[in-house]
Amino acid sequence: MTQTPLLTRAVSDPCTPLRILASCADGPGIVAEVSSSFAAIGANIRESSQFTTGPSDGRLFLRIVVDMPLSAVGKANEAMRRIATQFAMDYRLWPEDQRKRMVVLCSTADHCLLELLWRSQTGDLPVDIPLVISNHRVLESAVAQFDVPFVHVPAVSGDRAHSEKAILDLIQQSGADFVALARYMQILTDQFLNDASVPIINIHHSLLPAFVGAQPYKRAYERGVKIIGATAHYATPELDAGPIIAQDVDHVGHNEDVPALQRRGKNIESTVLARAVGLHIQDRVQVHENRTIIHA
Amino acid sequence: MTQTPLLTRAVSDPCTPLRILASCADGPGIVAEVSSSFAAIGANIRESSQFTTGPSDGRLFLRIVVDMPLSAVGKANEAMRRIATQFAMDYRLWPEDQRKRMVVLCSTADHCLLELLWRSQTGDLPVDIPLVISNHRVLESAVAQFDVPFVHVPAVSGDRAHSEKAILDLIQQSGADFVALARYMQILTDQFLNDASVPIINIHHSLLPAFVGAQPYKRAYERGVKIIGATAHYATPELDAGPIIAQDVDHVGHNEDVPALQRRGKNIESTVLARAVGLHIQDRVQVHENRTIIHA
Amino acid sequence: MTQTPLLTRAVSDPCTPLRILASCADGPGIVAEVSSSFAAIGANIRESSQFTTGPSDGRLFLRIVVDMPLSAVGKANEAMRRIATQFAMDYRLWPEDQRKRMVVLCSTADHCLLELLWRSQTGDLPVDIPLVISNHRVLESAVAQFDVPFVHVPAVSGDRAHSEKAILDLIQQSGADFVALARYMQILTDQFLNDASVPIINIHHSLLPAFVGAQPYKRAYERGVKIIGATAHYATPELDAGPIIAQDVDHVGHNEDVPALQRRGKNIESTVLARAVGLHIQDRVQVHENRTIIHA
Amino acid sequence: MTQTPLLTRAVSDPCTPLRILASCADGPGIVAEVSSSFAAIGANIRESSQFTTGPSDGRLFLRIVVDMPLSAVGKANEAMRRIATQFAMDYRLWPEDQRKRMVVLCSTADHCLLELLWRSQTGDLPVDIPLVISNHRVLESAVAQFDVPFVHVPAVSGDRAHSEKAILDLIQQSGADFVALARYMQILTDQFLNDASVPIINIHHSLLPAFVGAQPYKRAYERGVKIIGATAHYATPELDAGPIIAQDVDHVGHNEDVPALQRRGKNIESTVLARAVGLHIQDRVQVHENRTIIHA
Repeated sequence: MTQTPLLTRAVSDPCTPLRILASCADGPGIVAEVSSSFAAIGANIRESSQFTTGPSDGRLFLRIVVDMPLSAVGKANEAMRRIATQFAMDYRLWPEDQRKRMVVLCSTADHCLLELLWRSQTGDLPVDIPLVISNHRVLESAVAQFDVPFVHVPAVSGDRAHSEKAILDLIQQSGADFVALARYMQILTDQFLNDASVPIINIHHSLLPAFVGAQPYKRAYERGVKIIGATAHYATPELDAGPIIAQDVDHVGHNEDVPALQRRGKNIESTVLARAVGLHIQDRVQVHENRTIIHA
Repeated sequence: MTQTPLLTRAVSDPCTPLRILASCADGPGIVAEVSSSFAAIGANIRESSQFTTGPSDGRLFLRIVVDMPLSAVGKANEAMRRIATQFAMDYRLWPEDQRKRMVVLCSTADHCLLELLWRSQTGDLPVDIPLVISNHRVLESAVAQFDVPFVHVPAVSGDRAHSEKAILDLIQQSGADFVALARYMQILTDQFLNDASVPIINIHHSLLPAFVGAQPYKRAYERGVKIIGATAHYATPELDAGPIIAQDVDHVGHNEDVPALQRRGKNIESTVLARAVGLHIQDRVQVHENRTIIHA
Repeated sequence: MTQTPLLTRAVSDPCTPLRILASCADGPGIVAEVSSSFAAIGANIRESSQFTTGPSDGRLFLRIVVDMPLSAVGKANEAMRRIATQFAMDYRLWPEDQRKRMVVLCSTADHCLLELLWRSQTGDLPVDIPLVISNHRVLESAVAQFDVPFVHVPAVSGDRAHSEKAILDLIQQSGADFVALARYMQILTDQFLNDASVPIINIHHSLLPAFVGAQPYKRAYERGVKIIGATAHYATPELDAGPIIAQDVDHVGHNEDVPALQRRGKNIESTVLARAVGLHIQDRVQVHENRTIIHA
Repeated sequence: MTQTPLLTRAVSDPCTPLRILASCADGPGIVAEVSSSFAAIGANIRESSQFTTGPSDGRLFLRIVVDMPLSAVGKANEAMRRIATQFAMDYRLWPEDQRKRMVVLCSTADHCLLELLWRSQTGDLPVDIPLVISNHRVLESAVAQFDVPFVHVPAVSGDRAHSEKAILDLIQQSGADFVALARYMQILTDQFLNDASVPIINIHHSLLPAFVGAQPYKRAYERGVKIIGATAHYATPELDAGPIIAQDVDHVGHNEDVPALQRRGKNIESTVLARAVGLHIQDRVQVHENRTIIHA
């Protein structure tokens, strides 16, 4: 085997980058099979990250970015199907230049929503936002400034099923790849979370598992903590208990009352949510037993 | 009133620094009364820090360091007694150059203990350590290297009263001003905590209130947190619920298992405990409704 | 002396909060004189912070917030004048509820500007922004969304004097208390800095004194640093050498190229600039020998 | 090809972990060739990390940990030699369970030295320390407590060549794999750095490139920085300019004078040096154009 033909082809044939996220029971030869299959069709592995929960009886998590000759994309799909069968592998293949679509749900607090809209607009977060949904009208004009559609779905107490159905329909119609809850102050039902066919990223305004549920800053103040934080996680039926994607913290002092903690927390919340969204849209997150593997 | 005589005297008369920690119901004129009383006896306020929980019906917390002519120390005591009566003030007056005495309790983990011994020896922590007490003999020789007495008080299950009594006696005989629990792996009884006449600083290996109790690193791993931490607090009868003095954190990754978290946590634990001890021995900590005021 | 009359008056007479920032040669009795003078006119010291560069021959820096009966504000001014004469004290007295006016200069980067506009709008930064000045038109519409006037003053190379004169006039006409340079990419002349009668806060996109001047992220990348940062400082004639108000940092990896550092740096820059502005508008910053004292 | 034989063999044949660090011009098929070669001899890739400076004309940096049947180690060496020839690859193959040997040079400050000795003793840093060399005798007894040989090589001014020759001989005789400068306060000559055949890790007590050279804390104080730091880097002939391995920082206040910065800096310095040593002994560091690639 000589490398010359491959190198030549890589230059002459236009390339497209593909991302593969895969997981399977660990064992010898898996990475070798994947990488040699891609080499055989002229692809170059640009990034590769792997993690195993244990080499003998563990599970392998793999993220690969390949520069693939356009003419070989079909073969890449074929190769991955074959490999997936061989190793009982779950995988997803995604063109890197295909931006994901994110629907944002919010209530009245603007900081997380604006951070996402803003970073999407500047390109810091390469994500499309086809729709913002809120149970309030407060942020309607703010969203309008970004030329993003806004839909008001009131949260009628006693008739959650109705409004959740409306939200699910909107999410589906928007072609969303995932949903971000930007301080959306309604607890979603199990029904909703089960019916939603896309991942949902939530930001919780505490360093979970501390202060699950309501009023975390008030409780943090009362406990007298010296550090507050925020947590972005995938929403699951159990409240604030889903797989954690990102967390961050800040030191606070005794002279900061609850409103001061809330003010300081805003910056942490929006930064952490944006970081989690950034990891998600780059397919850097895999979930295993309620923990995330982050391919950094 | 002219300042010249005071300034002259301050130079000619040898000075001693005094620290005052005080608290009382807030109201006008308190700081004025304290500072003018000290000015009247030729003292200069070198550091001053105050905090009020609310100017109208709150409580005032005050820390002052004064350079006091030696000849006026008696008058300083007198002035503070008078002021305390006037404002129903709790206070403590402490010569800054009088080092506090700290008894350390430990079990088998060495990192927090060694950090305290080491910093005491180098002078980074100006504190005297008259005694180390442990329910194991493992660290005896390590302590011996620092020329600090070590007493082994085994923890006999089923007879806690006996060993706790022995520890309390040792603490009292040592003339300790306070106790540091340097990863002491015995839960102290309410009886012990009530009988101990000195403050007890504990280090807990989590960012409280997350992971109260046993095996915090294991539980942090299982929850999949991205940040671990440590908390130094005053021990109170309710487990890991006392006033927090200091906390710190570190980011962790999915590839760090429980032993890796424990290793990484060591540095956080010893740093946070040393910081809390440093604040305590400089009389920078006051407690109010299970929260601490830190005069930084 | 009894406290009762004072307490009674404090309740019955409407109060206004005043801030005093003062500095003078340190010596005994200064704080006492200030606080007893305020107590005598029925004011309550709500916050107090002091720092001395050395008790014997140092300089004292003092920040006090008092709750002052409205009827006694005249007496407060009188008292401060008397005290200032007695101790050769520089001081400034400022009603806490009088918002400062900040003119913002920017070029094409939006993140720092938007952070200031946004926080001003939400009230997180209680500051008025009467005017934004830019040497480009790029951000005009962004500023318009906040209902803030925008003036375009082109930077004509070879005729700096003209454009700087225009900017100075605009600053003066706006009644600005200070200026924030939100990634304004023109080096201001000594003439400008001398003629500007108000403080100027600049954000530099490095952790000064590293990477003074142009292209700090490029140079940080080339040096292979593992930490980048941003610095907010008062502008002085020497480039990037003025008194530092606030700094912050973030860890970076080998896989982050110059654009990635720039993206990551944006969040640090806007946070640090907002923090510095927040400290400044609360009169928490004093300058001494090119260093700042921060009354936190 | 079926996986069964490989899996069976992996269980029955005792395994040894090998680490490979490699770099070469990037191009298609390299990772594939490496991984399939290892798969062919029954090895399982447990960890893999790669970085390319650019997929078309960049350089590839690769770290792989494989679980290798003992009987196949010879074949592994053979495979790597073949691959290295094919791709003009620099590489190093290292059994993971073979601890590296580190000689420590120090002067009078103990904190970095003790951190390394301590962590080596507890196993947190799996490294052997065959020798400590110092130009002072101050730390001799501290080193003795760890049962590590100590050699005093005085730094005779005007005769650097002589003492540097003595140090080089000691390093060579000790069989050192690398050297750590634990606040060794002598500037090493170009001659020494050229003659030393092993990597040398230095800790500098500033956040490089700020404050290159002497008295960084004093200069940091005078500049009025709000953040101090420490930097571990490979020593090169240009002072404090070598490839940076690790950095960390801490916030400081205006009330911290030079000795206070020095005290606070100790903890940063020893933590950062220990982190860099930890990365180095796990073969996680590669150098490219004065920058490090860290396989985290």
